[in-house]
Amino acid sequence: METVSKAMTQFRLALIQLRVSSVKSDNLTRASELIKKAASQGAKIIALPECFNSPYGTNYFPEYAETIPGESTEKLSELAKENQVYLVGGSIPEEDGGKFYNTCTVFGPDGTLLTKHRKLHLFDIDVPGRIRFQESETLSAGDSLSMFETRCHLLLYPGAFNLTTGPAHWELLQRGRAVDNQVFVATASPARDVDASYVAWGHSTVVSPWGEILAQAGIDETIVYANIDIKKLVEVRQQIPVLSQKRGDLYAVEWKKP
Amino acid sequence: METVSKAMTQFRLALIQLRVSSVKSDNLTRASELIKKAASQGAKIIALPECFNSPYGTNYFPEYAETIPGESTEKLSELAKENQVYLVGGSIPEEDGGKFYNTCTVFGPDGTLLTKHRKLHLFDIDVPGRIRFQESETLSAGDSLSMFETRCHLLLYPGAFNLTTGPAHWELLQRGRAVDNQVFVATASPARDVDASYVAWGHSTVVSPWGEILAQAGIDETIVYANIDIKKLVEVRQQIPVLSQKRGDLYAVEWKKP
Repeated sequence: METVSKAMTQFRLALIQLRVSSVKSDNLTRASELIKKAASQGAKIIALPECFNSPYGTNYFPEYAETIPGESTEKLSELAKENQVYLVGGSIPEEDGGKFYNTCTVFGPDGTLLTKHRKLHLFDIDVPGRIRFQESETLSAGDSLSMFETRCHLLLYPGAFNLTTGPAHWELLQRGRAVDNQVFVATASPARDVDASYVAWGHSTVVSPWGEILAQAGIDETIVYANIDIKKLVEVRQQIPVLSQKRGDLYAVEWKKP
Repeated sequence: METVSKAMTQFRLALIQLRVSSVKSDNLTRASELIKKAASQGAKIIALPECFNSPYGTNYFPEYAETIPGESTEKLSELAKENQVYLVGGSIPEEDGGKFYNTCTVFGPDGTLLTKHRKLHLFDIDVPGRIRFQESETLSAGDSLSMFETRCHLLLYPGAFNLTTGPAHWELLQRGRAVDNQVFVATASPARDVDASYVAWGHSTVVSPWGEILAQAGIDETIVYANIDIKKLVEVRQQIPVLSQKRGDLYAVEWKKP
């Protein structure tokens, strides 16, 4: 029973802080190597960063975009199966019907595609003198929420913050989400490449349901590991029962299913 | 025109970090003095902390509770009018029909009661070996949302965190709310009294819509001032347009009016 219980409530998470180059095949090769390494270290859920197979930039998206299935996602399916892991494939530029999306695919340990999620809220920023970047120049937003079943309670964000939003908001937002929802939160960023047109913040992070940082990368390519124990989540929810105190009589969040 | 415009978009906020004692009349007297002082320094919105006229503790609530109107809120009305300010009266234990509430009253510059809000989510915490406190032992929760009109965009929380939740969540939650909603956020705490049965965290704070701390108290009795400029809020909302990107086609937050 203990083994069963452990298998249900504990697992090892790995975040691949990939250094993304402009050579797609190199990105796929290095991602493969790091996924294999993470699995050999016992990781059962492995996540890649946002835009892991292409440089992050509106001019790159059309050039690097693929259909799904396609070269990159077929590789992800193989990797999930070979390594017997849940693989959250960060995101890739996707092409479909002449439109481009920033799309995350998730594969199960048998290589099955569990979900495909197109980014809903495109990243547009214009801070005069600091940074201007508009995903909406070449990308279209998705039109549905996406869910998949695993055995854990985890919010996992592949993301690529920058040197303006990174120091201001990266850690804050994920710690905020963790405490608001009393869940584990993890973020996977590309490694920092100061020669890229968009310089990613790095600092892939795992946060506890209490808001503590459990593990965090620096700026270089690396794998961040965290042992997630769902007992901690149950504990925090008992200590401060904010979720059971929600006032469904006064307000509600509605999911408008299409 | 500039004066008009300034009056509409800029104002001075003051948070009274009151040292709350067990003598109600002393609490009211000191609150009066500090409100007068804040107004003389140009504050147009002044906030008191949670439970400003009574020690914070479930055994104190019934003993210190008043009806509304009653001694404390009549005093607040006078103070708002005398000082020509919006006065957010922190909270007091309120008695109504044999039940007790943790209630915030807000008065306009003419002394009118603008709103009365009974705390909806009672604070219950039980962290073994650290702190146990259950408002729900003697308090009842309110049953409606409350709003009032001013000319600013500001989230203002009278609150009394403690030495466990304070270091973990006080600053995080208000900075999170500020960035999520791109608004100014302010919190008014009682000063710390290490001899009290519930030791408040202090650190009354004002946060910008970008998540920066604009002003913050230490642990002692003091007034925190901040000059709020709504231009900053407009700027941040233009720089990262998350609010206009919300996807009302996919989700909504519903307010269930009674």
